Amino acid sequence: VDDSGHGVLDPDEAAHVTRVLRLGTGAEIDVVDGRGGTFHARIVEVSRGRVRVRVEGTASAAAEPGVRVTLVMSVIKGDRMDEVVRDATMMGVAAIQPVVATRSEVSVATVARAHRRERWQRIAVSAMKQCGRATLPPVHEPVTLERWLGSPEAAAPVLVLTEPAVGAGSRFGSVPRSAAATLLVGPEGGWTPDEAAAFAAAGFQFVALGGRTLRADAVPLVAMAALFEAWLAW
Amino acid sequence: VDDSGHGVLDPDEAAHVTRVLRLGTGAEIDVVDGRGGTFHARIVEVSRGRVRVRVEGTASAAAEPGVRVTLVMSVIKGDRMDEVVRDATMMGVAAIQPVVATRSEVSVATVARAHRRERWQRIAVSAMKQCGRATLPPVHEPVTLERWLGSPEAAAPVLVLTEPAVGAGSRFGSVPRSAAATLLVGPEGGWTPDEAAAFAAAGFQFVALGGRTLRADAVPLVAMAALFEAWLAW
Repeated sequence: VDDSGHGVLDPDEAAHVTRVLRLGTGAEIDVVDGRGGTFHARIVEVSRGRVRVRVEGTASAAAEPGVRVTLVMSVIKGDRMDEVVRDATMMGVAAIQPVVATRSEVSVATVARAHRRERWQRIAVSAMKQCGRATLPPVHEPVTLERWLGSPEAAAPVLVLTEPAVGAGSRFGSVPRSAAATLLVGPEGGWTPDEAAAFAAAGFQFVALGGRTLRADAVPLVAMAALFEAWLAW
Repeated sequence: VDDSGHGVLDPDEAAHVTRVLRLGTGAEIDVVDGRGGTFHARIVEVSRGRVRVRVEGTASAAAEPGVRVTLVMSVIKGDRMDEVVRDATMMGVAAIQPVVATRSEVSVATVARAHRRERWQRIAVSAMKQCGRATLPPVHEPVTLERWLGSPEAAAPVLVLTEPAVGAGSRFGSVPRSAAATLLVGPEGGWTPDEAAAFAAAGFQFVALGGRTLRADAVPLVAMAALFEAWLAW
């Protein structure tokens, strides 16, 4: 949105508005800027797939959670990862960083070749609109777990989800509340002992979710719910 | 398991043991009785698909949660309901009662004709084994919401999950802790005003899960996580 209150829709959204909804000049729509702003707008120009709108007022969006959660998620197979991106977005995740861990069944090269990041970002856009949020969680470029561990993003508080078999995890309720948290979720086969040692060396905190084994793709949703409840951050 | 420490496997499990695992007399297996018992056992007889075992010791199973949760779930479409049954079982649900609400997109007759209950019960067996539990949550015969409301099972504390748009829900943390709780989850289109009025008249408590709209099939998992965290019942 520029200073005169005009803006141009994202190409995917423009295609949706003109081809699916079949709207033209003069039609009223609600738009979000992905950074927390939601607006009532009117279409002022449609030309060659480009849709220009004029903002006519602000609208309300769903509240963001009280804690900024970054989900660092080991890439899991196919549809399951799509569902993780969708559900985490609807829960209110602030950002998603896909990583490839030792036991992940894909490589960074495969993920890049398949343009998975672009697909996940589109899923996040769609989930954002569906759940009423106006803030788009960025889906970052997938990297190896090792590379992520060496990045400035791997700073505390990082909470590592551990399997019940491993046992040595705290409860979310015992982790001191903070304004931001990074949740680190492993692949179906779990973390390797080397990975767990690297997390401990980095000062990350291990947290556990009860005594039953959950599916890897259910863990992000359950962990976010437990965190929001423990920190009263819904 | 009888007094002499012998038992016969359930026909589905017997078929799995003989046809998939190709085990015969003398093989050692771990068995669960679905009521909390887990045992090391040895196959003593295989005849015409019937597998008889002798218990040789007890084994350990995943701990059950600190609260007995009955999930009263509005039937949602196809695979999604299967996933709800699987995930709720892995989270530690004590029992599942499928109901058909006004806005459910199926009828009780359709569900009965398709033998959905039997399918969901098999999914619960499989999820129980996968997550390490030894307690099988029964999946009850689907009934209309109205009929469930008239049954003795519809007794407090019943927690009704409400959508953010409805607004008037408490947090799980503000509900007094008890040994058992019933979670009532609506269909994709939500509860009707009449249904909400009936819940209020019955003294049920409305609870909400943050400001974002979740998918109906994600709600049971998120609600159980919030409840376990709020009541320290993992």
